[in-house]
Amino acid sequence: MSQSIAANPDRLFPADPGTRSIARDLMDRVRDLPIISPHGHVDAAVIEHNTPFPDPAALLVSPDHYVTRLIHASGVPLERLGPKAGAPAGAEAPAPDSRTVWREFCKAWPLFEGTASGYWLRNQFHSVFGLQHEISAETADASYDAISAKLLEPGFRPRELFKDFNIEVLATTDDPLDDLASHRAIAQDPTFHGRVLPTFRPDAYLNPANPLWSANVDRMIAAAGDGASGYAGYIAALANRRRYFVEHGAVSADHGVRTPATLKLDGGDASRLFDRLRSGQASGHDGEQFEAHMMYQMARMSVDDGLVMTIHPGSFRNHHQPTFNAFGADTGHDIPFAVNYTEAIRPLLQDFGTAKDFHLVLFTLDETVFSRELAPLAGFYPSVYLGAPWWFLDAPDAMLRFRSAVTETAGFSRSSGFIDDTRAFCSIPARHDASRRIEASFLARLVAEHRVSEERAHELIVDVVDSSPRRVFKL
Amino acid sequence: MSQSIAANPDRLFPADPGTRSIARDLMDRVRDLPIISPHGHVDAAVIEHNTPFPDPAALLVSPDHYVTRLIHASGVPLERLGPKAGAPAGAEAPAPDSRTVWREFCKAWPLFEGTASGYWLRNQFHSVFGLQHEISAETADASYDAISAKLLEPGFRPRELFKDFNIEVLATTDDPLDDLASHRAIAQDPTFHGRVLPTFRPDAYLNPANPLWSANVDRMIAAAGDGASGYAGYIAALANRRRYFVEHGAVSADHGVRTPATLKLDGGDASRLFDRLRSGQASGHDGEQFEAHMMYQMARMSVDDGLVMTIHPGSFRNHHQPTFNAFGADTGHDIPFAVNYTEAIRPLLQDFGTAKDFHLVLFTLDETVFSRELAPLAGFYPSVYLGAPWWFLDAPDAMLRFRSAVTETAGFSRSSGFIDDTRAFCSIPARHDASRRIEASFLARLVAEHRVSEERAHELIVDVVDSSPRRVFKL
Amino acid sequence: MSQSIAANPDRLFPADPGTRSIARDLMDRVRDLPIISPHGHVDAAVIEHNTPFPDPAALLVSPDHYVTRLIHASGVPLERLGPKAGAPAGAEAPAPDSRTVWREFCKAWPLFEGTASGYWLRNQFHSVFGLQHEISAETADASYDAISAKLLEPGFRPRELFKDFNIEVLATTDDPLDDLASHRAIAQDPTFHGRVLPTFRPDAYLNPANPLWSANVDRMIAAAGDGASGYAGYIAALANRRRYFVEHGAVSADHGVRTPATLKLDGGDASRLFDRLRSGQASGHDGEQFEAHMMYQMARMSVDDGLVMTIHPGSFRNHHQPTFNAFGADTGHDIPFAVNYTEAIRPLLQDFGTAKDFHLVLFTLDETVFSRELAPLAGFYPSVYLGAPWWFLDAPDAMLRFRSAVTETAGFSRSSGFIDDTRAFCSIPARHDASRRIEASFLARLVAEHRVSEERAHELIVDVVDSSPRRVFKL
Repeated sequence: MSQSIAANPDRLFPADPGTRSIARDLMDRVRDLPIISPHGHVDAAVIEHNTPFPDPAALLVSPDHYVTRLIHASGVPLERLGPKAGAPAGAEAPAPDSRTVWREFCKAWPLFEGTASGYWLRNQFHSVFGLQHEISAETADASYDAISAKLLEPGFRPRELFKDFNIEVLATTDDPLDDLASHRAIAQDPTFHGRVLPTFRPDAYLNPANPLWSANVDRMIAAAGDGASGYAGYIAALANRRRYFVEHGAVSADHGVRTPATLKLDGGDASRLFDRLRSGQASGHDGEQFEAHMMYQMARMSVDDGLVMTIHPGSFRNHHQPTFNAFGADTGHDIPFAVNYTEAIRPLLQDFGTAKDFHLVLFTLDETVFSRELAPLAGFYPSVYLGAPWWFLDAPDAMLRFRSAVTETAGFSRSSGFIDDTRAFCSIPARHDASRRIEASFLARLVAEHRVSEERAHELIVDVVDSSPRRVFKL
Repeated sequence: MSQSIAANPDRLFPADPGTRSIARDLMDRVRDLPIISPHGHVDAAVIEHNTPFPDPAALLVSPDHYVTRLIHASGVPLERLGPKAGAPAGAEAPAPDSRTVWREFCKAWPLFEGTASGYWLRNQFHSVFGLQHEISAETADASYDAISAKLLEPGFRPRELFKDFNIEVLATTDDPLDDLASHRAIAQDPTFHGRVLPTFRPDAYLNPANPLWSANVDRMIAAAGDGASGYAGYIAALANRRRYFVEHGAVSADHGVRTPATLKLDGGDASRLFDRLRSGQASGHDGEQFEAHMMYQMARMSVDDGLVMTIHPGSFRNHHQPTFNAFGADTGHDIPFAVNYTEAIRPLLQDFGTAKDFHLVLFTLDETVFSRELAPLAGFYPSVYLGAPWWFLDAPDAMLRFRSAVTETAGFSRSSGFIDDTRAFCSIPARHDASRRIEASFLARLVAEHRVSEERAHELIVDVVDSSPRRVFKL
Repeated sequence: MSQSIAANPDRLFPADPGTRSIARDLMDRVRDLPIISPHGHVDAAVIEHNTPFPDPAALLVSPDHYVTRLIHASGVPLERLGPKAGAPAGAEAPAPDSRTVWREFCKAWPLFEGTASGYWLRNQFHSVFGLQHEISAETADASYDAISAKLLEPGFRPRELFKDFNIEVLATTDDPLDDLASHRAIAQDPTFHGRVLPTFRPDAYLNPANPLWSANVDRMIAAAGDGASGYAGYIAALANRRRYFVEHGAVSADHGVRTPATLKLDGGDASRLFDRLRSGQASGHDGEQFEAHMMYQMARMSVDDGLVMTIHPGSFRNHHQPTFNAFGADTGHDIPFAVNYTEAIRPLLQDFGTAKDFHLVLFTLDETVFSRELAPLAGFYPSVYLGAPWWFLDAPDAMLRFRSAVTETAGFSRSSGFIDDTRAFCSIPARHDASRRIEASFLARLVAEHRVSEERAHELIVDVVDSSPRRVFKL
């Protein structure tokens, strides 16, 4: 059994000794700052009820499509990877038990060498679960038992870890019609001091290509349309629900769209298009136009109600239909494609790009837009911020490429700060740790190349790690 | 007040001590070579009349959209940044005075950490203006006074700096109907030894989407059409004006186009299209076809008259209409987009790609085309040269990415040499200094990795810094 | 005459001394492993007959369009570069003699500094031909004589070099109607122990845009259509010829297509489209649909017969028509363009992406798809493997960019292993040497940054160099 490299204090730092020494010093200045997580997918109810975590496989393997996808690529069917992944519709075979899933995972562990997921997992195993050695197929049962034991400890409940992890703010992602009862309960609980904020995520109500769109719209209008019907009721209801989220602490509205297209329609045209879509007589193009128009409307409402607008485009969701049919969404086959922001986002920016206090955070899975489009946009429009490297790009080398691509044009002040975007609660410290080490590494190189003074780097590392997310997300 | 890092002799060099030492040696071999600037935007009249520079803000802040854009992004309205930037159409408030603009700039100075503009400014402050310390909000008045004092010194006039900067050739960018009186006066002045060359830039006469196109065409035909009218007069006039530029020392014709599309139309079709466009009955598509055809014509004329053809595509100009309406063009919101050269440039290359002595320098703001398209094109066609990293890409990391992307396919012989492309006269030495340091850094890495011998690197550094621009621009 | 840097044992390794030392150690573990070359363009007949190599120019210059293209770019007409390159249709001037071509090449040698071709050539000169010094214009005759002398040595025949080079498997690329007599003869020869495998390459039979397509289809049906005619005979014949290839040792079918488009047509639609195309009444769009459908069919057949499917898209072949007219294909002007895999490959992956034992290796000349599309696809679909960096990207920096772009998403297990893709037999060791050094360099950095343990790196370097190509190509 080999010693885990997760313990190495210089992990992720550049090899050159001089640069490494600068990086160490910069990391020391931010290591103990609280975690601010303005966008992610943890379930607020888990914090509300302080629900114990399930077993190792159900916590760390089965629900994490970053993990199951690579094991699947190696030839293991998803049904062998556990409850969530392994519930094909109509399947009669029982889901495998947790220990079996864990053994499958440990056998597959070498696949994760060099990956971002491997880094996060190794660091969780070491720092959160206290494993001193690398996991392996041979020691699968031992690591299963060790983690299981940890999960039974009283200090290993969500609220205790929230504190241990030094989390200050954690945003969740929520359906617009969610009553936010968990968020309210947490906020009113005098024994809990973290901030758990909802995020308004209206995709299913804005995109006519969603098979449930029309039913969702019915529910939306019925719930919050102020008695109005049609497009007017729909717009009123969205504004009302946003206000409800703001009252419950939300700071942002998030949009997972296929492309960043935006479009301004006048009220009459929008209303007629809405009616046509509701009647089922509309084309796919009509649906795209409507969604683009609704992105414009969401920006308009953000200018009104102050919610930071975040856009996550460019993923072809559920690429493999048979897998989607059997296992549902979020099972590892969302595949990025090329995105163009410059023309697509222009209609929105024409009217709101310089609007007072409007914040628009633009994400991408297509790295080419970082230097070509996003840095120039964020370097002019006061509203536009560069979203942190997201999903496949939330990884050491990719984060360094991001900083290299955008900084020379947009400096350090136009970035969102780190976004962990995770549903894996126990991975949060490892993710923020990786991000801080990479920020320190990038800045250390600039210092070593005499492009930034050591004195200024001391300020910048705090700015990118701590001040940026507070400023950009109005925290 | 902290010491400026601009004084560090190792700035921009790689951190690894062995590689750095090689880079130092390479830099020593080119540090004192004259500056050759074959493309830029300095006003020839300033050299002709040896016009004193204005105050610090009017020299270094207000007219520089690289600088104002990032301050604008931080929330400062353009009208607070001075005369050029700050003259919204119909504004009644007086433009802010220079000292106020300078204070605004000094307050915003931290925004420029890590940016290319920050590097150039810091080096100007140190090397040109003699400031020993970093500028800051607290010392804004002191730095204003120090620079102002410098600007009053007799040695600080354009012609004296031209000599101090060791500039050998400086190309300007000029309207085709410009009489080039300043260039003539400079050339005939026995007391001035630099070469100041005009560049033929006919965009406004070639692109029917320009609202002034038809009026420009009228003026063009009237001025130089040899009495002919219509398309024939237009083509004759362009050829005549190019000849006039050649007679006044021009070595290149520059083309700022939206895309690199080229198209060969036969004479009759072109003439009919021209007439249709002039009649106002044509579509946007017609205009694009015509402009693409005119790029083909410009190449044909370059084969005839020897002017090097340079193409700068891929920028969405004036992205934010309200800002354009208020402040005009070149105010910081030209945003790049994806470009494809392979198919677009093919009609031109079919006929002129191997034409004797034809030089075609291709620029891009979309880095993806460097390895994918431009290096392969330049690695086959004797006419095609890789334009230096331009605009947002004229920055240390981006320049290293460029060399890494193109060299393995096209070697060192197919690049244009450095292009500063600037209207900021006092920034010219800092820009060339940065470029030379990056060339030295890239070559030093190849030497350290035993990919190029030290002996050959000594030749290559001189070739890329000095021989390339002379060869490519026929100087 | 300067000493060749090809002798340096640290060539291509990173400059940082600590990282270099790790790279050295990793390289030591794979230096002597046999060469596995699962895709390339060597002629099997040369191995069968153990044909002596021709003179230096005919071996190393004239037939290599990687070499002639850059000399051509410098202004040397192709006809001065020898028999293959220099045979313009209808030319009356005799082709230049080999010594003259060699002198031209030696004069042009400095153009290759920093290029991949330069690296391979320099290493051949040193390791294969025993030249101790850099070649140069001044020593052209001496190097010509030295290499010529080597070529006459009995140990310098293809079969002897095959052994000296430590080649275990060498795949060729073959026409589907080739009788594979050379492969059979080699396989049956008890005196030769290497494996020389054919590869099924049916482009000319699948792409209706090929002027010879219909004639090729006639020949295909006549040769192997089982007596059937039309689409049914065509499909049967392709399946039969694939089986013939499998029986002669083929492990893969290779597809050089313009785009990676795939399409599933039902049998009736496909048959009618085939008939329309054969009648000459079809449009270009019809041809593209048909080729896309045939890619789907090829995948289906691969699932049946086990041939690994490799796809090489994204090159605009024969970009300069006049050069193509004079000298034919493969003369240096195939230019890449932007490619999108995510949507294009989906129809094929819907049905075969998770098919048992199906292997699909995806190549690209457009680097942007590595992180954006290929790594996510290979990180989910068990069939999909990342093709090694190809053609212009088969170069040290580009290979490092590839590893950086894909590893964090897909790890090390989803890559094809190195593909030399060459027709230049003598360059094979240099190419594999470069690839192994770069793999060692990349892994060494991960070790130095504590992202991979030294112990695991020892396994990974063997896996990527040796196990990956065996596994992916079923060797």
